[in-house]
Amino acid sequence: MKQIFSKLNFFTNGEGFTNITNDLNLFIQNNGFNSGIINLTSLHTSCSLTINENADPNVLKDLKKFMKSLVPSNCYNSLSREREVIYYEHFQEGEDDMPAHIKTALTNTNLCLSFQEGEIILGTWQAIYLWEHRFSQKERSISVHIIGEKSSNIYNDK
Amino acid sequence: MKQIFSKLNFFTNGEGFTNITNDLNLFIQNNGFNSGIINLTSLHTSCSLTINENADPNVLKDLKKFMKSLVPSNCYNSLSREREVIYYEHFQEGEDDMPAHIKTALTNTNLCLSFQEGEIILGTWQAIYLWEHRFSQKERSISVHIIGEKSSNIYNDK
Amino acid sequence: MKQIFSKLNFFTNGEGFTNITNDLNLFIQNNGFNSGIINLTSLHTSCSLTINENADPNVLKDLKKFMKSLVPSNCYNSLSREREVIYYEHFQEGEDDMPAHIKTALTNTNLCLSFQEGEIILGTWQAIYLWEHRFSQKERSISVHIIGEKSSNIYNDK
Repeated sequence: MKQIFSKLNFFTNGEGFTNITNDLNLFIQNNGFNSGIINLTSLHTSCSLTINENADPNVLKDLKKFMKSLVPSNCYNSLSREREVIYYEHFQEGEDDMPAHIKTALTNTNLCLSFQEGEIILGTWQAIYLWEHRFSQKERSISVHIIGEKSSNIYNDK
Repeated sequence: MKQIFSKLNFFTNGEGFTNITNDLNLFIQNNGFNSGIINLTSLHTSCSLTINENADPNVLKDLKKFMKSLVPSNCYNSLSREREVIYYEHFQEGEDDMPAHIKTALTNTNLCLSFQEGEIILGTWQAIYLWEHRFSQKERSISVHIIGEKSSNIYNDK
Repeated sequence: MKQIFSKLNFFTNGEGFTNITNDLNLFIQNNGFNSGIINLTSLHTSCSLTINENADPNVLKDLKKFMKSLVPSNCYNSLSREREVIYYEHFQEGEDDMPAHIKTALTNTNLCLSFQEGEIILGTWQAIYLWEHRFSQKERSISVHIIGEKSSNIYNDK
């Protein structure tokens, strides 16, 4: 069992999704790993790591829209009986900052994925996305850590 | 440290929860592992893996109901001040499909669980569930990957 | 590659956040680990593990407030077109219990974090929190499991 630690950087372009599946598979292959786990941590509190559909682009559009309407800018309606309107107290870093922290809390900062024969195990319709929640262009850094085997001598149960 | 990769399939029966804790513990034991991690990835974008209460069935009922009302079919109310009604653009695969993708994004596709003496470490009231978000019966496939020790020669800090 | 299993207990003081980053780093260092993964599982169904901002305390205040208004006590408004009011069926353990189960499902029970040179890899503004969702003081137990190397002989890709 060997380890490798690195960081991968991605430029995002405002709210939305960057498919990072290929970059992760390339990282595994370029470092000669065959099987193991690739542990991912987004090093930011205003973007997420998520797995979702890779086919119809409207899925990602609807996801983004839903999240925006669930966690709006400036203020939001409570779902309590009274439906009071609540304002964010943390607004100094822009109207998209506090919603971005909440969206991060409602999704994932950390994914631990399995790979075999140099490829992350995913379903046919799945891709791994870096989900940007801020409005402007950002450079985002993902911690990438592999624990695995470089040879293929493992027992594969079918 | 040894590895094993496999897939476990489960039939779900519309929206709701399938307790997969025992199947996972049996998989660990049948493969002779004593301690390590069991890394789970749901290979679908319309069901989740979640850990929640195993006691009062009303907890799971309320969870399902809440999620259904947070991510309704066809359209939803925004929580923004204007409370506009928003329709999904991705509706071609059924009214339950886009909500299922959103519910998946709001919960988990991936769990990395620790086990010791052949059993996943959980609290007394916890169980691991496959959470189906689609309305009809489905066969779901979970990637199951163990990295661990077969003997019990590990240092156990109490 | 070596393993260690333990539990860390924390007292919480009603809804809110307990920063456990230092305790986790101390656990790694006290057990002489240099690099690997530290796998965390909250052993409860009414509190979460989350990574969020460690700077402006208003971020945590807003997070708590948002979650409280998204998953209110007693009953909630649906986001469906009809906006019906729905009551929880599981209310016997207190008005904060069912909302706590839902908040747990919407966040995380499990985090698998990478560490290097005895320290968990996080961004500058990140901390790891135990997020209490119940109203009263609780003692919470987190399963802590390390798989890693005690020496620093690993290949570090920069």
